[in-house]
Amino acid sequence: MSLPTRHAFFISDRTGITAESMGEALLFQFDTFEFKRATYPFVDTLEKAEETVALINQVAAASHTRPLIFSSIVDKEISRIIQTSAGLHLSFFDAFIHTMETELGVASNQKVGRTHGIQDPDRYDARMEAVNFSLSHDDGVSDKDLSHADVILMGVSRCGKTPTCLYLALQYGIRAANYPLTPDDLESTDLPRMLKPFKHKIYGLTIEPQRLHHIRSERRPGSRYANIDNCRSEVNEAESMFRQHNIPFTSTTHKSVEELAAGILQATRLQRRF
Amino acid sequence: MSLPTRHAFFISDRTGITAESMGEALLFQFDTFEFKRATYPFVDTLEKAEETVALINQVAAASHTRPLIFSSIVDKEISRIIQTSAGLHLSFFDAFIHTMETELGVASNQKVGRTHGIQDPDRYDARMEAVNFSLSHDDGVSDKDLSHADVILMGVSRCGKTPTCLYLALQYGIRAANYPLTPDDLESTDLPRMLKPFKHKIYGLTIEPQRLHHIRSERRPGSRYANIDNCRSEVNEAESMFRQHNIPFTSTTHKSVEELAAGILQATRLQRRF
Repeated sequence: MSLPTRHAFFISDRTGITAESMGEALLFQFDTFEFKRATYPFVDTLEKAEETVALINQVAAASHTRPLIFSSIVDKEISRIIQTSAGLHLSFFDAFIHTMETELGVASNQKVGRTHGIQDPDRYDARMEAVNFSLSHDDGVSDKDLSHADVILMGVSRCGKTPTCLYLALQYGIRAANYPLTPDDLESTDLPRMLKPFKHKIYGLTIEPQRLHHIRSERRPGSRYANIDNCRSEVNEAESMFRQHNIPFTSTTHKSVEELAAGILQATRLQRRF
Repeated sequence: MSLPTRHAFFISDRTGITAESMGEALLFQFDTFEFKRATYPFVDTLEKAEETVALINQVAAASHTRPLIFSSIVDKEISRIIQTSAGLHLSFFDAFIHTMETELGVASNQKVGRTHGIQDPDRYDARMEAVNFSLSHDDGVSDKDLSHADVILMGVSRCGKTPTCLYLALQYGIRAANYPLTPDDLESTDLPRMLKPFKHKIYGLTIEPQRLHHIRSERRPGSRYANIDNCRSEVNEAESMFRQHNIPFTSTTHKSVEELAAGILQATRLQRRF
């Protein structure tokens, strides 16, 4: 039996990232529907608003259902036009802005929300600097790099260090280096020599051996590197090292980069630059 | 004169990314205040909810103002506890979930919102694959790589290709390769030979010469590479090439990676994998 279908529109005068984020969180609460999604970013003129309304109305007529409209439109005129559509209008600006105006005792400035734009060039540059840092110190670190890092993610090859570092940099402006534990490093539970001065910055990542075996097998099928017993012993040795030195660590097996990054930020109490 | 201060809390039972995104969009509308921000992710037990309320109440008492609470808490019990705090409670679940239940004719499932978690492992893996693709094809592409790319960002060195590729991969699961235009490439307006079969995938990035000069000077001060006249001529030649071949392009000078990625996605009508 197929699920009933509904159309969901994410509409924004900027990137649409906030509208999508909010809308997806709400849609996730209704898993007995199949939602057909469409994002309309940069709806920042009255003409574009009218075109968008026409599209919504076409979909409504063709599907005989009311589309769900998740809107992050700031401009009152544009929002008013979107509200004339045949969709169910869910706008968090309209929902909250009056409450906030009352609380703060001032009118909102009605600036188009550049939440995901460059509000502060220095901060934005610091964030891009963090991205460059994480990129250029991926899998080939030096002492100098480590001294400039905010955090050093340590773990065996292919356990998820690199995407987590990149997300920490892109989302939070954190300079995240990563240190891949090689079989040589794992021969004892001593910390790799290069890392000893930076122990306080280290955060460990681990992974279920079966999952590691799967990931490594896609890279080098049949290799010792991908062998399940080898994966098991590397993971065990890495976890022993973390425990030996009281290094906080988490498993990447069932976590997204967003969850890993937010968890690491919380655990390390690092200050974001963004 | 310093701006009046208010405290803003972003509270979530998961990563806090949605609560921050919504909250920042709203705070941006009130620029006559200085907001002191704090994020509390993973508030997923009654105990943690009570601890969070205690923290909010401490801040309220110490600051003699009402903190603003941007919440994306799904669980009704946890949300009820957060609402007992001395803060102004702004929760988009509470604001919209009843309207959606009425529209869809079913109760919401009250699942803790893993909007930023791994909902669908295959999709998540495809997204990580895109990140690995963008990473391994950064500044050193081959024909084979380009044939697997969804989009190829082309532009002069340091115009913003790499962070944009990474954001396209991380946020949207797009396999984004990048091709740096070298001075050799720029000697004629011909497309670089390697790119000719993939012209339909190319999207151009350009940048104001003054900004490029600034960025390159931080890398190699005083070099020909960073010289303003050289930057000006490289940018002119790159733009001539884009125009010659009808390659769509945009300037990165005043745009964030989020704005660039959302704009490229819209312009190329690429389907996201995520």
